[in-house]
Amino acid sequence: MKIILKENERIDDLELNNLKIIQNAKGFCFGIDSVLLSDFAKEIKYKSKVIDLGTGTGILPILLSAKTRDTKFVGIEIQQEVAEMANRSVYLNSLQNRIEIINDNIKNLKDKYNPCTFDAVISNPPYKKEGTGKINFQESKIISRHEVTAKLEDFIEISKYLLKEKGSLYLIHRPERLVDIFSVLRKHKIEPKKIKFIFSHINDEPNLVLIKAIKNAKPFLKIEKPLYIYNEDGSYTQPILEIYKKEN
Amino acid sequence: MKIILKENERIDDLELNNLKIIQNAKGFCFGIDSVLLSDFAKEIKYKSKVIDLGTGTGILPILLSAKTRDTKFVGIEIQQEVAEMANRSVYLNSLQNRIEIINDNIKNLKDKYNPCTFDAVISNPPYKKEGTGKINFQESKIISRHEVTAKLEDFIEISKYLLKEKGSLYLIHRPERLVDIFSVLRKHKIEPKKIKFIFSHINDEPNLVLIKAIKNAKPFLKIEKPLYIYNEDGSYTQPILEIYKKEN
Repeated sequence: MKIILKENERIDDLELNNLKIIQNAKGFCFGIDSVLLSDFAKEIKYKSKVIDLGTGTGILPILLSAKTRDTKFVGIEIQQEVAEMANRSVYLNSLQNRIEIINDNIKNLKDKYNPCTFDAVISNPPYKKEGTGKINFQESKIISRHEVTAKLEDFIEISKYLLKEKGSLYLIHRPERLVDIFSVLRKHKIEPKKIKFIFSHINDEPNLVLIKAIKNAKPFLKIEKPLYIYNEDGSYTQPILEIYKKEN
Repeated sequence: MKIILKENERIDDLELNNLKIIQNAKGFCFGIDSVLLSDFAKEIKYKSKVIDLGTGTGILPILLSAKTRDTKFVGIEIQQEVAEMANRSVYLNSLQNRIEIINDNIKNLKDKYNPCTFDAVISNPPYKKEGTGKINFQESKIISRHEVTAKLEDFIEISKYLLKEKGSLYLIHRPERLVDIFSVLRKHKIEPKKIKFIFSHINDEPNLVLIKAIKNAKPFLKIEKPLYIYNEDGSYTQPILEIYKKEN
């Protein structure tokens, strides 16, 4: 199958098992958050069935297909053009036997799947509450960054429905939303079990937080060692080099 | 008034404005957590009325009396002997015009005070859930460390009652309880606004977390820069030296 690139699209090399991804230079391109989340979630077990809520370019299932064994992924994306582009990336990497891309709103997943269908849910959801922060008026970026089409609680409520008993939810989000995230997770009985803060530099406040929560688990939160991205001289820290090296 | 020491009691110098404290060598002695919490809460405004829930030796009001201006404190302690010892420390420091020690269960505070009486609540509550962890069979230590006589939710519920509108609650707790703490705070509409993790060493997981929550505030959590206690060579870090220096 010949892969066709549309206007403003380019193919980027993921430097991991020869994987590539199509991105729109004027749209939402994946960042270090997807790389960190895929590393955090790479413990997902052999033969797991995984769903990525709001898959965008398909970056998470594509990276995780190389980091996990015999896993199968569904990626759901509400934006039709973005979902179609993700689907071309799946074909570009010949991953159509492992990754299925669906173009729909996550709120419709109850009509598509039985409850307790997935071993794991992953998501890099929109970080900002609707009506907060600067709005980027290019529609595709608004949907990727702001809770316009689905809110945090929609993501968590559908995760509860989709996850098998003791299945895991992996999220990356902004630290300022941690109270929202913990409260809503507990409300839906997906207990936060492990978090990891990401700092740009050692003397900064954290920029991002990785969260693992388990359906119907007992309360006890483990806060992992922080991850610092840059050394004082601006070079990458050893843990970041290792995450990227593993992808070479 | 002559201060009488009982068996196993000693007077320790707090190295802050000549303040001293009576402690029972076989009881629960104050630790770095009280010093850190008093530093975190020293922003409490001029002329505030403050209550310390579970004051123990009275360490928090005694330290904060020197770190804040014209503030008044109530310290409530359920253990009769410990409350009586705290009261002797108040007299030893001639602080009876600023600190009042009450011997009671925090659950009875609704009978003693009108709602919305205090500008701030501080607490270093028992860290462990009842029935978890090693139990220390000396009764005084059990009550100080385990949620035997009052649970986290009791502390937060009474804080909601006691705090004025937009009043602040300052807590120190264990990171593994963060989901419990956030969920219960939000349930009682005391919104977590600022947290700070305390690490022994830079490559450890955090040991403690400082939390500031505000009654009826809007959601937005600020996670402050972490505080590391020790350098790699075992010496105190600069921020810790500054906290202790300020007390000299």
